[in-house]
Amino acid sequence: MAAGSTFGKIFRITTWGESHGQGTGVVVDGCPAGLNLTEGDIQTFLDRRRPGVSGYSSGRKEEDKIKILSGIFEGVTTGAPISMMVENTGHQSGDYSALKDLYRPGHADYTYEMKYGIRDFRGGGRASGRETLGRVAGGAIAVKVLEEMGIGIYAYTTSIGPVTVNREHLSLETRDQNPLYMPDPRAAEEASAYLKECRKRGDSAGGVAECMITGLPAGLGDPVFDKLSASLGQAILSIGGVKGFEIGDGFSAARSAGSVNNDEFYRDGHQVKKKTNHAGGLLGGISDGSEVIFRAAFKPVPSIAAVQRTVDSNGAEREVSISGRHDPVIVPRAVVVLETMAACVVLDSLLLNMSSRLDRILDFYRD
Amino acid sequence: MAAGSTFGKIFRITTWGESHGQGTGVVVDGCPAGLNLTEGDIQTFLDRRRPGVSGYSSGRKEEDKIKILSGIFEGVTTGAPISMMVENTGHQSGDYSALKDLYRPGHADYTYEMKYGIRDFRGGGRASGRETLGRVAGGAIAVKVLEEMGIGIYAYTTSIGPVTVNREHLSLETRDQNPLYMPDPRAAEEASAYLKECRKRGDSAGGVAECMITGLPAGLGDPVFDKLSASLGQAILSIGGVKGFEIGDGFSAARSAGSVNNDEFYRDGHQVKKKTNHAGGLLGGISDGSEVIFRAAFKPVPSIAAVQRTVDSNGAEREVSISGRHDPVIVPRAVVVLETMAACVVLDSLLLNMSSRLDRILDFYRD
Amino acid sequence: MAAGSTFGKIFRITTWGESHGQGTGVVVDGCPAGLNLTEGDIQTFLDRRRPGVSGYSSGRKEEDKIKILSGIFEGVTTGAPISMMVENTGHQSGDYSALKDLYRPGHADYTYEMKYGIRDFRGGGRASGRETLGRVAGGAIAVKVLEEMGIGIYAYTTSIGPVTVNREHLSLETRDQNPLYMPDPRAAEEASAYLKECRKRGDSAGGVAECMITGLPAGLGDPVFDKLSASLGQAILSIGGVKGFEIGDGFSAARSAGSVNNDEFYRDGHQVKKKTNHAGGLLGGISDGSEVIFRAAFKPVPSIAAVQRTVDSNGAEREVSISGRHDPVIVPRAVVVLETMAACVVLDSLLLNMSSRLDRILDFYRD
Amino acid sequence: MAAGSTFGKIFRITTWGESHGQGTGVVVDGCPAGLNLTEGDIQTFLDRRRPGVSGYSSGRKEEDKIKILSGIFEGVTTGAPISMMVENTGHQSGDYSALKDLYRPGHADYTYEMKYGIRDFRGGGRASGRETLGRVAGGAIAVKVLEEMGIGIYAYTTSIGPVTVNREHLSLETRDQNPLYMPDPRAAEEASAYLKECRKRGDSAGGVAECMITGLPAGLGDPVFDKLSASLGQAILSIGGVKGFEIGDGFSAARSAGSVNNDEFYRDGHQVKKKTNHAGGLLGGISDGSEVIFRAAFKPVPSIAAVQRTVDSNGAEREVSISGRHDPVIVPRAVVVLETMAACVVLDSLLLNMSSRLDRILDFYRD
Repeated sequence: MAAGSTFGKIFRITTWGESHGQGTGVVVDGCPAGLNLTEGDIQTFLDRRRPGVSGYSSGRKEEDKIKILSGIFEGVTTGAPISMMVENTGHQSGDYSALKDLYRPGHADYTYEMKYGIRDFRGGGRASGRETLGRVAGGAIAVKVLEEMGIGIYAYTTSIGPVTVNREHLSLETRDQNPLYMPDPRAAEEASAYLKECRKRGDSAGGVAECMITGLPAGLGDPVFDKLSASLGQAILSIGGVKGFEIGDGFSAARSAGSVNNDEFYRDGHQVKKKTNHAGGLLGGISDGSEVIFRAAFKPVPSIAAVQRTVDSNGAEREVSISGRHDPVIVPRAVVVLETMAACVVLDSLLLNMSSRLDRILDFYRD
Repeated sequence: MAAGSTFGKIFRITTWGESHGQGTGVVVDGCPAGLNLTEGDIQTFLDRRRPGVSGYSSGRKEEDKIKILSGIFEGVTTGAPISMMVENTGHQSGDYSALKDLYRPGHADYTYEMKYGIRDFRGGGRASGRETLGRVAGGAIAVKVLEEMGIGIYAYTTSIGPVTVNREHLSLETRDQNPLYMPDPRAAEEASAYLKECRKRGDSAGGVAECMITGLPAGLGDPVFDKLSASLGQAILSIGGVKGFEIGDGFSAARSAGSVNNDEFYRDGHQVKKKTNHAGGLLGGISDGSEVIFRAAFKPVPSIAAVQRTVDSNGAEREVSISGRHDPVIVPRAVVVLETMAACVVLDSLLLNMSSRLDRILDFYRD
Repeated sequence: MAAGSTFGKIFRITTWGESHGQGTGVVVDGCPAGLNLTEGDIQTFLDRRRPGVSGYSSGRKEEDKIKILSGIFEGVTTGAPISMMVENTGHQSGDYSALKDLYRPGHADYTYEMKYGIRDFRGGGRASGRETLGRVAGGAIAVKVLEEMGIGIYAYTTSIGPVTVNREHLSLETRDQNPLYMPDPRAAEEASAYLKECRKRGDSAGGVAECMITGLPAGLGDPVFDKLSASLGQAILSIGGVKGFEIGDGFSAARSAGSVNNDEFYRDGHQVKKKTNHAGGLLGGISDGSEVIFRAAFKPVPSIAAVQRTVDSNGAEREVSISGRHDPVIVPRAVVVLETMAACVVLDSLLLNMSSRLDRILDFYRD
Repeated sequence: MAAGSTFGKIFRITTWGESHGQGTGVVVDGCPAGLNLTEGDIQTFLDRRRPGVSGYSSGRKEEDKIKILSGIFEGVTTGAPISMMVENTGHQSGDYSALKDLYRPGHADYTYEMKYGIRDFRGGGRASGRETLGRVAGGAIAVKVLEEMGIGIYAYTTSIGPVTVNREHLSLETRDQNPLYMPDPRAAEEASAYLKECRKRGDSAGGVAECMITGLPAGLGDPVFDKLSASLGQAILSIGGVKGFEIGDGFSAARSAGSVNNDEFYRDGHQVKKKTNHAGGLLGGISDGSEVIFRAAFKPVPSIAAVQRTVDSNGAEREVSISGRHDPVIVPRAVVVLETMAACVVLDSLLLNMSSRLDRILDFYRD
């Protein structure tokens, strides 16, 4: 939708808040009535994106305590919009005055100023990573609805800088055993060493995260412009720092051949299944009943201590070194953002899909 | 929008048509009044996506002659919706009866049937490549508006199967000298040889196309969910066969370091410019005034002559060999689809951006 | 949606066409798959809005023959967009050249020119009554879906100029026995005499039509901005010439008292019912299971033979007398427009309503 | 938009909050950057809709103190979403437990329960009049932007029950001299007496409010479905208790003749003007440069002390008398809701209209 702060068609989230305003929040509209929901359900997700939980992440220690302001009655959703917010507490506005006029390289300072003619320079304003708080809180509700339907969403880091997980060692249970959310302990160690070195140099790293969605029925997504691949793409590419997105074999498929890339169908009891899943669970952009798999490429964190050259809003050439509590990599904290954004898309597609067939509609309204 | 056939917010295209229906078309709503527009303007774009123009493409020889049905008065757009259509002429419905019950691997047969309970099995129905006719016709109008504003959009093939253009030899003027739209004659020859071999084996290839947008002002795109990267992503990932999308350095950026990937700002006269363009022209998802560059990965064409195993809608296991006039690669024909879809996104962002600043709005309405 | 030619959220119609272009049409997106549909189903509705069927209507004798161009396979909807069009045949462009520069009083000539800077002056262009062709064709499909669900929509003329039906004589079966669609034969005769007199004076009349929707389940419509009353209001007020809209007792309710206007609930077997229906079937904007009743006020047809003073686009003062084949009243032809627009709103609300409750969603996806 | 809590296309408000939740609020997205905005600007509007300011209104004395949580930097809008909220303070949840199972006549209790299967019975939940807080706060910003453009919006009560203002005595300056916002002191006195009598009987009244918009340029609104009349209609009919809406002469126009109802154009210097304004400022649904005038009919307040018969959710027949602090009429408090909703529609139409003409777009982007 125009202006950019709303996402979704039936299940819709509208986020608000800057890095250094009063707070950050989200309004969730279109959540089905009858879901048990507590602040704790949401907090679990926020805690996973919180800075300061590991040595690799920003030292800013905010509580990020969620409050639900509306839409719940006696612990259950009522169909009314669910407003949630987190108060901003951990910041000091003074931190950023030195950056007031500067266009930090790799940041949105310059582009926001060109667009709006004014810019909240404190901590990136609306372009701050804190913006994801609202997405995660809203998407946590979608995850909860999906769980009731037997649908699981699971993301993890597959590479940081040059370090990539070994798919033969991949073991999803190990993801939560390291602060990088890498499901391969050996790779996690290497990546950890690499990040220490980055930090020492005043530098930062990028990386890739992968997301797997299980339990989806076939038939989700709409033809042409609203393919599930396109909606997931918009959702994921809207996350700060994401520069690439791929489904299934993605860019590798471009080097493959039809005879290899096509997944053969076979019968398993009454079910139609695929022998392989190069397609990543989508054919014609519509779910085929196998696992949906996608990946997102994150650029290196732009806030680095190393000296960079830039200009300020008066046109003067300047040097900048961004000190302070910054993550050397964003991917581990973004894993939960991937999961929750994917959940929003998938839930929306499930709700939209209810009206695809006349016979099912007639059944629904026949008591 | 729900149901999937409409794209855009102010400049909006709604496409319709199946492979083997009466025709295929598009309604363009929100085109500014006052644009000179002829059928010839549109036809030029359609001719570039037409099958049968080269030995590499499908032999189906359709005229794909566009008709403008509304929205033009004395050669000029009036602000009313522009309806355009192409009649289907080149097909014989009999062609497809053998495939009636089959779920072709890599195609949307199975997923459409799961979604709708019914399927127009002739030539892929709505999931056919013919669907892109409507996009291209609609987007051709966007391209024409952008030309008036000094904005250019230019796409080309950068790889086919394992063959990739050599960026040191890249010369955009050579793009149109080969039917693969590859701006590197040597790579084009290699790719051509590779495709012949594919065809001989009854196989097909994938590939990558790149698109460059020049002349964009800074400030386009909206924060958070409607970043230009996200809108372009949705637009491009909605094209049939696209499995990956990246902006600027994309997946490579994930392996880079902040000190390298950040583009330094400098002053050029009164203008702020960037020394490099790893970002692909977008910072915080908003255009920064440099060239916007993105790439799309296409999977290998799923229709292959080689024998594949599959099942039919009765659950029986079957073998299938898809004979007939099929492209061994889709990328060259998709180049114009990339350009026109990108044009839709960019024009829409220009129109939306007009309301970002109060002072500009006041100026606009002050005569 | 922006630009104005699309209506609806899940069941969506996009109309196109001017009075004197190549034709007029509609693309229906989001129609559930599995509906039997023929051109005859649509034609029946178009015939009811056709000019020239009675002495009271315009003499322009167009065939208005509908063609379905897509979305149907073997007589059944496939879920793909249904494109339909009517070719323009009955007009001569020469008719209108005398009006080229004139701003006809009561018409949209002036406002379109201010908005777009250009105007298709032939027959009102996009602001012509022919624009309703697309709505009626699209809405006819909605009516057909609703019929399958046991929902009926029935509109009729309740007043023409000063002549109003007597509610005590009202007999809906008599509606189709007179060309004014008035369900009171005596009032129809009076109105007919009144219109003859209008025509003699070179004048025209307005009127009111009422619409009744039966068989709706309780619970349709969404709170706050998407109340069913608001959506019906938008749909009906978007019809050319409509200047007023009311639900249930409408403006009369404003003069009533709470003790009278409140409808008491009572029990009828297992059902909750209302003793009266001052509310017109909506409480809090959501359907309550009783009949939905609304009315639309149409202004007098602005095209009159009597001499009027006006200006032209050069600022010169002019006189104008609009001769030719014009209806002295639009209401009888608009009755079918009311029905089909209401059908679009109601069907959309039924589809949207499927996702209001978690338990029903879980049931839907549990096989 | 689906789910109902968002209104607008470019300037968009998303409201949340129930009568007895933590608070009520709104997120405004798409507000142009560069507007000076304080909490005081908003508070002025909220104070006008506050209950308890007069003997005629509910005794519930809430402060309704607005807090701006985001989107403002150094007193100026930044283009980021503006989140605002009012904490709920004046209620005691115990008040409503007696009504827990009852379907109050004229209220949305029954319809919400049918839709959602659950209902926040405290004070009407989401269907409460408190829902308008969010609209008014959001619309107040639109009013402020319009003021900068020289556009004024002014609403007032024209009737309460059977008492109607005398248009010959109408004097808008007197509106604020009585708590009924009636611009005719004599009518205000009569209405006041009528309301006292209503209250004595335990009954309530309806009424009509009128709204006038001045200073609009010609050309606002979009053809066909997004006529300004249709958008205003949706906006106004979405306000709780509104059962009718009319533009210009409205329902009276239906009894008029074309020769009377058509407004003649004439020249005034370089401007085209109309001699009369039966049209209420809209031709073909697009603004014609004269004042836009519309009216809304409100039903009598459904909460009355007089005994009514109804049923409860167990199907038992019950009697109900709604005691407590309820307005005998809603119209005076709704006047500010009309103004702010109209402001949202008008501002949105101004922003959308910027892209209607190619030449103006080219001018805009040419520096």
